[in-house]
Amino acid sequence: MTTKSVAIVGATGAVGKKILEKLLERNFPVQSIKLLASSRSAGKEIIVGGNTYTVEETVPESFDGVDLAFFSAGGNISKMFAQEAVTRGAVVIDNTSAFRMTEHIPLVVPEVNEHALQNHTGIIANPNCSTIQMVTALQPLREKFGMKRIIVSTYQAVSGAGAEAIAELQSQSGQFADRADSEASILPSAGASKHYPIAFNAIPQIDSFDSSGYTLEELKMINETKKIFGDDDLHVSATCVRLPVVTGHSESVYIEIGKVGITAEDIREALVGAPGIVVQDDPSTQSYPMPLFAEGEDDVFVGRIRKDPDHPAGFHLWIVADNLLKGAALNSIQIAESLIR
Amino acid sequence: MTTKSVAIVGATGAVGKKILEKLLERNFPVQSIKLLASSRSAGKEIIVGGNTYTVEETVPESFDGVDLAFFSAGGNISKMFAQEAVTRGAVVIDNTSAFRMTEHIPLVVPEVNEHALQNHTGIIANPNCSTIQMVTALQPLREKFGMKRIIVSTYQAVSGAGAEAIAELQSQSGQFADRADSEASILPSAGASKHYPIAFNAIPQIDSFDSSGYTLEELKMINETKKIFGDDDLHVSATCVRLPVVTGHSESVYIEIGKVGITAEDIREALVGAPGIVVQDDPSTQSYPMPLFAEGEDDVFVGRIRKDPDHPAGFHLWIVADNLLKGAALNSIQIAESLIR
Repeated sequence: MTTKSVAIVGATGAVGKKILEKLLERNFPVQSIKLLASSRSAGKEIIVGGNTYTVEETVPESFDGVDLAFFSAGGNISKMFAQEAVTRGAVVIDNTSAFRMTEHIPLVVPEVNEHALQNHTGIIANPNCSTIQMVTALQPLREKFGMKRIIVSTYQAVSGAGAEAIAELQSQSGQFADRADSEASILPSAGASKHYPIAFNAIPQIDSFDSSGYTLEELKMINETKKIFGDDDLHVSATCVRLPVVTGHSESVYIEIGKVGITAEDIREALVGAPGIVVQDDPSTQSYPMPLFAEGEDDVFVGRIRKDPDHPAGFHLWIVADNLLKGAALNSIQIAESLIR
Repeated sequence: MTTKSVAIVGATGAVGKKILEKLLERNFPVQSIKLLASSRSAGKEIIVGGNTYTVEETVPESFDGVDLAFFSAGGNISKMFAQEAVTRGAVVIDNTSAFRMTEHIPLVVPEVNEHALQNHTGIIANPNCSTIQMVTALQPLREKFGMKRIIVSTYQAVSGAGAEAIAELQSQSGQFADRADSEASILPSAGASKHYPIAFNAIPQIDSFDSSGYTLEELKMINETKKIFGDDDLHVSATCVRLPVVTGHSESVYIEIGKVGITAEDIREALVGAPGIVVQDDPSTQSYPMPLFAEGEDDVFVGRIRKDPDHPAGFHLWIVADNLLKGAALNSIQIAESLIR
């Protein structure tokens, strides 16, 4: 197998670091690794697997000789440099929202729509974290029973908002008694005009609001799910909520499948052994997924599988995954692995 | 107005204390107040509003001369003493699940079904906390537009599991770095065979499991909602999740109303000014309900009102209330106030 010259743009961020770690851990056939970030981080050293890497500033020439560039430095950086990297010969796997809904750019979760990679023209988009874990878990059900409708409520971790949000949660968590007066300057999002404490709270806003009253995070789940499944007739609606959890997104997912007469046990059987999925679903042993125990794990965990007593095709699932791994870094590397196969 | 001799059973618990506080705060016409609890708490002194109350052990004779007895000491205590209290002349307002689904016992949220009080035979049941805030918020919509279906995912506070659960969250919150190894001995429920940390986690189990795979908390929401609305044809399904929040339950509620052509603005207008409801719903000012700011408040807060883009009668609401107040103590006192009117 030919080895690849790899660049990671946004290498100092939470996801960028996980991409580097996972590349080494999964023995990706790397010839060289170039860590790129803003001029502010240039010169910084990152030690992974006993090796020291020095961060360089991202400039157009950074991509000369690069085969594969992972972008995870925000949508603006992707818009500025992704096409440049492609022009200089790289394939770009972009973890931002910059190109996800662009018609000719594949939006890929390998367990679901690996085939979409065939028509790529240089840029491949990695979906939003909360979308990835949901479609991974629903794909086996969609294949076997059909899928008509999805209504999801999320329980999302602060690490999705970056290292500063984690620090803010940690600091606020010490202020139990005067929790309502905790200082807040990051969440719900760094650019927002108002900030609220996340410790001992639940904030029903992730990203900014659209004129429809939905947040961009909710619209990502709605639109990306339809694109990945290639099904514009699928009904999807979403409510996205940030929680005082460090890492690990949870989702209460309600589905209406395309068949009646299916039992919760049928759903469970369709999920057991499916790629990337671990079923944790045994009430008798209080076995169900929880974000605290999904942190650091590659899999998507599914439990609380139940039939809606009042609807012949309705089911509940509780889906949990590490938002920095399957929700971001791992999925990006799985895309790269699919490409070189 | 004639004054009443009042007893509070479970007076040393979180809800019992709130009942006492609210009775005084709302100038309920009290002739005397008797605080009752287990023999373990007898002799304990409770100071509220400058007055000192001494806790007595609950025995059958405790209810002699009592007009109104609030029960909030667990279902077993209610089963042991509620009928005894009625026999001795008291009206019982029971905050446990002991009698909620008993056919001839009214299950009452005054804003919704005050009329059900007319046929009481001594015991009146106060619904489950998560049910109360949901039906309060949905009642004006049900009246105006009809209600066909409810799918709810909850985000529930630890104070619903008592003072020990609050202490456990506080203690675990200091263990940020080794959070997955936090000691846990209370949640998901004191009687469970396994316990999980709640700090930096989300536990998709409240109360124990039924053979259907639903938890008792979920079944309470499903069955109580149908009973309070008096509508067996209403479709209700629920997923209940415990969060690292001290007080304040949040709910992501999806509804299908009985009319099409209704807008989110119509829903908002139907809720503004409705009894017990405060609408906090302005994306332009990041105004939406959050549990951290609902703590200590009497009202049910509603926001994030949106139309499902893919369903002509589907809407989302985000409903937050103090689970110890409107979810328990306040609603019990509102029932008492309805009775004496």
